[in-house]
Amino acid sequence: MDALRLPRLLEPGDRVTVVAPAGPVPADRLDGGLAWLRDAGLVVEEGASLQATSGHGLAFLAGDDGRRRDDLVTALLDPDVRAVVAARGGDGTPRLLDDLPWDDLATTEPTIVAGLSDLTCLHQALAARLGWASLWSPMPGTSVLGGDEPDGWSRDGLLGALSATTTTPLVLSGRARVTGAPVTAPLVGGTLALLSAMVGTAGFQPARGAIALLEDVGERPYRLERFLTHLRRAGFFDGVVGVAIGDLTDCRPVDQVAAVVADAVDDLGVPVVEGLSFGHGPRQASLWLGRPATLDATTATLAQPRPA
Amino acid sequence: MDALRLPRLLEPGDRVTVVAPAGPVPADRLDGGLAWLRDAGLVVEEGASLQATSGHGLAFLAGDDGRRRDDLVTALLDPDVRAVVAARGGDGTPRLLDDLPWDDLATTEPTIVAGLSDLTCLHQALAARLGWASLWSPMPGTSVLGGDEPDGWSRDGLLGALSATTTTPLVLSGRARVTGAPVTAPLVGGTLALLSAMVGTAGFQPARGAIALLEDVGERPYRLERFLTHLRRAGFFDGVVGVAIGDLTDCRPVDQVAAVVADAVDDLGVPVVEGLSFGHGPRQASLWLGRPATLDATTATLAQPRPA
Repeated sequence: MDALRLPRLLEPGDRVTVVAPAGPVPADRLDGGLAWLRDAGLVVEEGASLQATSGHGLAFLAGDDGRRRDDLVTALLDPDVRAVVAARGGDGTPRLLDDLPWDDLATTEPTIVAGLSDLTCLHQALAARLGWASLWSPMPGTSVLGGDEPDGWSRDGLLGALSATTTTPLVLSGRARVTGAPVTAPLVGGTLALLSAMVGTAGFQPARGAIALLEDVGERPYRLERFLTHLRRAGFFDGVVGVAIGDLTDCRPVDQVAAVVADAVDDLGVPVVEGLSFGHGPRQASLWLGRPATLDATTATLAQPRPA
Repeated sequence: MDALRLPRLLEPGDRVTVVAPAGPVPADRLDGGLAWLRDAGLVVEEGASLQATSGHGLAFLAGDDGRRRDDLVTALLDPDVRAVVAARGGDGTPRLLDDLPWDDLATTEPTIVAGLSDLTCLHQALAARLGWASLWSPMPGTSVLGGDEPDGWSRDGLLGALSATTTTPLVLSGRARVTGAPVTAPLVGGTLALLSAMVGTAGFQPARGAIALLEDVGERPYRLERFLTHLRRAGFFDGVVGVAIGDLTDCRPVDQVAAVVADAVDDLGVPVVEGLSFGHGPRQASLWLGRPATLDATTATLAQPRPA
């Protein structure tokens, strides 16, 4: 695939809207995350539904679909909002996808959209339907950015990816599973459960010509196998040029998880590096989906230049 | 949809092959289940991989894909094997689907294929790719048929569905969620997690013109929501004429599960009956997928004539 369109990066004083397209956001973590973003020089606004606690009778939604979607749409269509940052994941983002104003969005300049986990679905749809690059990133309503002990590396990484203030490439080190010559290609992927939930729907973005990013949290080996088999059968890996595996946080037993990964990706004929610090772990890298990165199994690294 | 092709039903002395296309089968339960089938007058043969305990290094598979698939194919292509019965579910059936000899099977007479849970995927593919009716049924390597305290109702129901020895219709009683005039249509569906895992792959069978059967086991509310939203977005429910919900075994908390179900199906504009005894519960009905049944929300029943 070709590199996707990079939104304009942030400068001090730019407006950022924090939204909750999925689950309810713990207030204490959110407060810390918002304060940190403000301290970084951004003008941070809260989506109207950001602190909602239920939707459609479902305790795991941050308000009804209409409210969560309105927050997202309002921010995406406002030319002065430069970034839309998800406060946390959970569940519920897929419910919003089919009613986003895709025709209107297709005629606007790309906005930065940042988040991970359930946001995988939105990243997929932004790539497939609009050709926008978007930012796989930790989220300000979670412990890694907003809790009592936020991770400085994850925080710095997000600011670096959002802004043009550093030119140092991001380099993640892992373990080579399958060797091969280094490959440079755009990144496509995210959380396995959510990639599976996008298969066969509008906005599914396969990894043809791309380096597949894969991670997940709290899944048993047979579930990971089911997701991976689903993606294989649906063609997600057809034409993939490399596989970058992040954290498989709380996925146990570890030996069976390793066997599932080996079974699913070792025969793809492309380099595979695992153990990279992106996903749901204590150190969460920010990576531009749809933008080129270099996967080098000889050095067991994934490197992405800072966007220019 | 039109009714699918019904295989020839069983008569005493017919050959039946029991296979393990998914997970390893506990020997003690299997022994009881096989003995019961033999006592019922059937000639029961064991697939070569029926007692295998691992495949591809994955403890949750009953042998490598090739072995499990060979058992299935050998039985399906043998004109003297009248039924292929899965010993249990688990995980792994989807791995076999794309390499089944679909062209050969398309020219053979339909064989009875029986099972549930992971077998949902095979039922889907048999319907979509071959137009075969197949039997949603309890399995002889599980506690309901083969354990120390098998359920007589479930056992009798399976024998009744496999054979032409009774003409009494099967009638399941539940609770009406959404009322409406009775509808008669073929049954399509199964376990939600597996239906989701079929979306976008060869063999996915949507419920257009059918009554959707839905059940699952051990899923949290947000997971059920994700599967249902996936199916909705992928068009599974487009043109559905009724929804029959079976057991949602060990899906908790119950109030949130109920809210998820309400959210997902109450607006479809068709009758919905829930609490029907099919799925992973203590009483497991046998139902012919692809064959007509009548869903009557005024009496809160799902009735299927015995196949003729």
